[in-house]
Amino acid sequence: MEYKYLNSINGPEDVKKIPEDKLPELASEIREALFNRLTKKGGHFGPNFGMVEMTIALHYVFESPKDRFVFDVAHQTYPHKMLTGRAKAYIDDAHFGDVGGFTNPAESEHDMFYIGHTSTSVSLATGLAHGRDVTGGKGNVVAIIGDGSLSGGEALEGLDYAGEMKTNLIIVVNDNEQSIAENHGGLYKNLAELRKSGGACENNLFRSMGLDYRYVEEGNDVSSLIKAFKEVKDIDHPIVVHVHTQKGKGYPRAEENRESWHWSPPFNRETGEPLFKWDGESYNSIFAEHILEKLKSDSSIVVVTAAVPGAVGLSQDVRSKMGNNYVDVGIAEEQATAMCSGIAKAGGKPIFATNATFAQRVYDQMTQDVSLNKSAVTLHLSSSSVFGMGDATHIGISAIGMFSNIPGLVYMSPTSKEEYLAMLDYSIDQNDHPVVLAVPCDGVNHAAYPVCTDFDGVKYQICEKGEDVAILALGDFFNLGRAVAEYIGEKSGKKVTLINPRFATGLDEKTLDSLLSNHKTIVTLEDGILDGGFGQKVASYYGDKDVKVFNYGFERKFYDGVIVNEVMEERRLTPELIYEDIKSK
Amino acid sequence: MEYKYLNSINGPEDVKKIPEDKLPELASEIREALFNRLTKKGGHFGPNFGMVEMTIALHYVFESPKDRFVFDVAHQTYPHKMLTGRAKAYIDDAHFGDVGGFTNPAESEHDMFYIGHTSTSVSLATGLAHGRDVTGGKGNVVAIIGDGSLSGGEALEGLDYAGEMKTNLIIVVNDNEQSIAENHGGLYKNLAELRKSGGACENNLFRSMGLDYRYVEEGNDVSSLIKAFKEVKDIDHPIVVHVHTQKGKGYPRAEENRESWHWSPPFNRETGEPLFKWDGESYNSIFAEHILEKLKSDSSIVVVTAAVPGAVGLSQDVRSKMGNNYVDVGIAEEQATAMCSGIAKAGGKPIFATNATFAQRVYDQMTQDVSLNKSAVTLHLSSSSVFGMGDATHIGISAIGMFSNIPGLVYMSPTSKEEYLAMLDYSIDQNDHPVVLAVPCDGVNHAAYPVCTDFDGVKYQICEKGEDVAILALGDFFNLGRAVAEYIGEKSGKKVTLINPRFATGLDEKTLDSLLSNHKTIVTLEDGILDGGFGQKVASYYGDKDVKVFNYGFERKFYDGVIVNEVMEERRLTPELIYEDIKSK
Repeated sequence: MEYKYLNSINGPEDVKKIPEDKLPELASEIREALFNRLTKKGGHFGPNFGMVEMTIALHYVFESPKDRFVFDVAHQTYPHKMLTGRAKAYIDDAHFGDVGGFTNPAESEHDMFYIGHTSTSVSLATGLAHGRDVTGGKGNVVAIIGDGSLSGGEALEGLDYAGEMKTNLIIVVNDNEQSIAENHGGLYKNLAELRKSGGACENNLFRSMGLDYRYVEEGNDVSSLIKAFKEVKDIDHPIVVHVHTQKGKGYPRAEENRESWHWSPPFNRETGEPLFKWDGESYNSIFAEHILEKLKSDSSIVVVTAAVPGAVGLSQDVRSKMGNNYVDVGIAEEQATAMCSGIAKAGGKPIFATNATFAQRVYDQMTQDVSLNKSAVTLHLSSSSVFGMGDATHIGISAIGMFSNIPGLVYMSPTSKEEYLAMLDYSIDQNDHPVVLAVPCDGVNHAAYPVCTDFDGVKYQICEKGEDVAILALGDFFNLGRAVAEYIGEKSGKKVTLINPRFATGLDEKTLDSLLSNHKTIVTLEDGILDGGFGQKVASYYGDKDVKVFNYGFERKFYDGVIVNEVMEERRLTPELIYEDIKSK
Repeated sequence: MEYKYLNSINGPEDVKKIPEDKLPELASEIREALFNRLTKKGGHFGPNFGMVEMTIALHYVFESPKDRFVFDVAHQTYPHKMLTGRAKAYIDDAHFGDVGGFTNPAESEHDMFYIGHTSTSVSLATGLAHGRDVTGGKGNVVAIIGDGSLSGGEALEGLDYAGEMKTNLIIVVNDNEQSIAENHGGLYKNLAELRKSGGACENNLFRSMGLDYRYVEEGNDVSSLIKAFKEVKDIDHPIVVHVHTQKGKGYPRAEENRESWHWSPPFNRETGEPLFKWDGESYNSIFAEHILEKLKSDSSIVVVTAAVPGAVGLSQDVRSKMGNNYVDVGIAEEQATAMCSGIAKAGGKPIFATNATFAQRVYDQMTQDVSLNKSAVTLHLSSSSVFGMGDATHIGISAIGMFSNIPGLVYMSPTSKEEYLAMLDYSIDQNDHPVVLAVPCDGVNHAAYPVCTDFDGVKYQICEKGEDVAILALGDFFNLGRAVAEYIGEKSGKKVTLINPRFATGLDEKTLDSLLSNHKTIVTLEDGILDGGFGQKVASYYGDKDVKVFNYGFERKFYDGVIVNEVMEERRLTPELIYEDIKSK
């Protein structure tokens, strides 16, 4: 591939040099570059293929960075990156590592924010607009938000507030008729009416929020888009430009199966088949199978997701089998959580299954709607771990500090498949309090010790009774704890006590007290940030006792591009380094 | 006052026994009972006076608790309490203590949830409806939400999701044309159009979210309401009943000045004047004056509130003086926070001023939109303290554990007026990171030691150098720390070290290390829940050192009806009890 145009683009000013009638050729080159990277490295597929023409038109008409773009959720910005000096990261395999998957000011002045969660763009853009005005600045502020992101509370608050502003603000709604899975929420009926009527139907969500509005049907036609953007450039009030695009445009398989091709692993362009396949057991499949089995005898269980069913193991097939016992609320985590509280109060058994990084959106709802009301909701938390953590926008290791300090909650950390299932059953069937269940992320391990199924009250499980040194190894890090205990036992010649704490909330004071008689050193291990976590509670409890406590976990920082082994070493999370530490004191 | 009808009502079934044409007399009695309590005890005024007729109609038509009411924000439920067996708490002064200010299942089976924050009712109600359906239950689910609450993200997510449900769900919108202060957001233009057109205008927020809709203009006429509710009872799909009421109905002063009379302290019914006046200095007035002064020379400062400007000291007068440097986004905390991040990125200096209890709504935005993006936002946090804490719905002592574990944030805890102002100036003028500033709540104290204005990096201030025992007393509890230090000094005959840590995030390791040479006991004091807080971090740091650490603060629980002295005693937060503790070890 020659990349005649793309190779000449070092920034948006070079896009403007291309004659308008040649821009479709640039679009073709961008799609080829996307194929080059995505077939080999994987990434967000459908969103980027759909945004090619719109991105060209944005950079053709506006003047970034003087005009400010805020992309939502920024997973559709590969074409934007290509047009702002980063084309090599798509064309040249040796440069794949130059860019991350989202906008990031550290990469380019054309990226306004580091963004990786949905529904934030409109609110951020209202701030850019207001900040521009009070500081006497200039330029357009343009938020680009997908239809799927519109259902999020922050986006709706943003649209509503924008509706009373009296200044330049352009909100481009990229409507590809799809969230990650199908859209959910009544507003999507209105978007469908708007598309059908060419934007002319009487009822209009955006106008009902006080916003001006225009519609563009040909969202994959560069000229139509250029015309529309020229007309709204330098406008003196907020306006929504509703653009109809095709998700996955340019690859028939992706146009047809939009959910599967939202994100793609490396794949064969001819066949569409992924290059690597994983068909082993995973907690996703274990969860789905277990719930389907339980539903046979208990129709009061309801699994709720917020737009990421695939990420928690609920394929289209599993969802259809669950029927009314499954609810996807779309991108609306607050709704999911409060709805679960209502389901519990009405006698149902709700499970909100999501990723830890998205659960940070429901701190308030877990506190107020759920815990304060003693609603027996299970928050089934995936990826609350250093294992599989990606970049700083998706930082699962915050989970313990985030949830374990909320009153009324019980935070459970299983160490094996069998313990996970026992805790899941307990959580679903009890009626007294909410449970946050941190799904293990270090692969599917089988229980090395009998699973203790007494979960009422905080009781630790003493797996090995030793002396001198005790290891309290929580959840994911239990296997590390076993290795540490064995290593120290060998080196010191004294058997080490190994404990599975099972809970990140509360303390088993009886067990902690019992250790005092013949232990001098307590080591805590947790797969999370130390601040606000499990180990610090243990240290505080032992603060006035004659025992030394060593807390191991992660720093309070936005870890980026984590390589697990390196981070573990850096945090001294290895048997050798831990032994070195405790020996030296 | 005789209370002919009210005295005969022990539950909703008794309301139904009253002939429909006598219900206005019941309404008058309810208003008299409201006057009785509110003139003497204070409470939410306008919302309850406006809801009298609607509450009667609801209980006349529906059958609570089989039919389930969810009130939003439940501050308008005094009439509901009167009609569900709790009239004495309004009629009989000796029974004022029988009820709290919000719905609470512990009080009555007619209260579905313990609620005290806005915008939750629709989502909770969707859950009640779905839970009813999967468990084979019966009855109507009715959410009652004020117009002010509609702008909250959770409410908008709830309305949107409700728009795709296919089951009984009734959403009563109580539109009194007012939030706590005036409404903000474009949707209120649509509500005004709907009111003006009798619900007939083409554009309709609720219909654009897929919901059925009907309008009731005479929201303070019992018969109109009964007719409307009868028509929607047992409906087979979600519907919005938009009811136009008058806030403060029945007391001309409150009808006219709706913001002042949203909530009222005890007052004289004849004159409307409060019985007690406070005109001393407060952090509210200090904040307002200081910002007005700074604005004279710096027009890039922007103060943002989310519907509670009065609670943070911004009267109508102050707001109008601030002009474009003040923004109220309405009940929309997520919008407020993300907007602040945008303002900072555009070169402005944003301050989001709110109460700690509402700040729990922005855990996600403070993490993702603000901290990850290093936006220099000041989160100005009022009532993050045991002082002035009300019931369990407003639990300010969570603040340290909530925010201090988020990466990238700096959490500052001033101990005096002078230190507060220095920290506020620092936070506004620096450009590097977000600051959470915990406004002191133990009255306005003046600095007992020179204020250290070096705030770059975490440095503690050693106020008194002693030996053996060191007290680290954070923020609000610094004065307690002084008292503890003096008491122990006297009793032990050895001068005690007194430290003002100033920061709840990070540790000043240099100072902590320096204490090791001549101290055996470290005491931490914080005005917050211990779990996830400041003291546990100190305990963890000292875990492997030869020093004893005692952490003092509060338990991880929903404190309710706090009486400060009692709770302090219970948590051993007195000089005598702390000395007893450290002596015994």
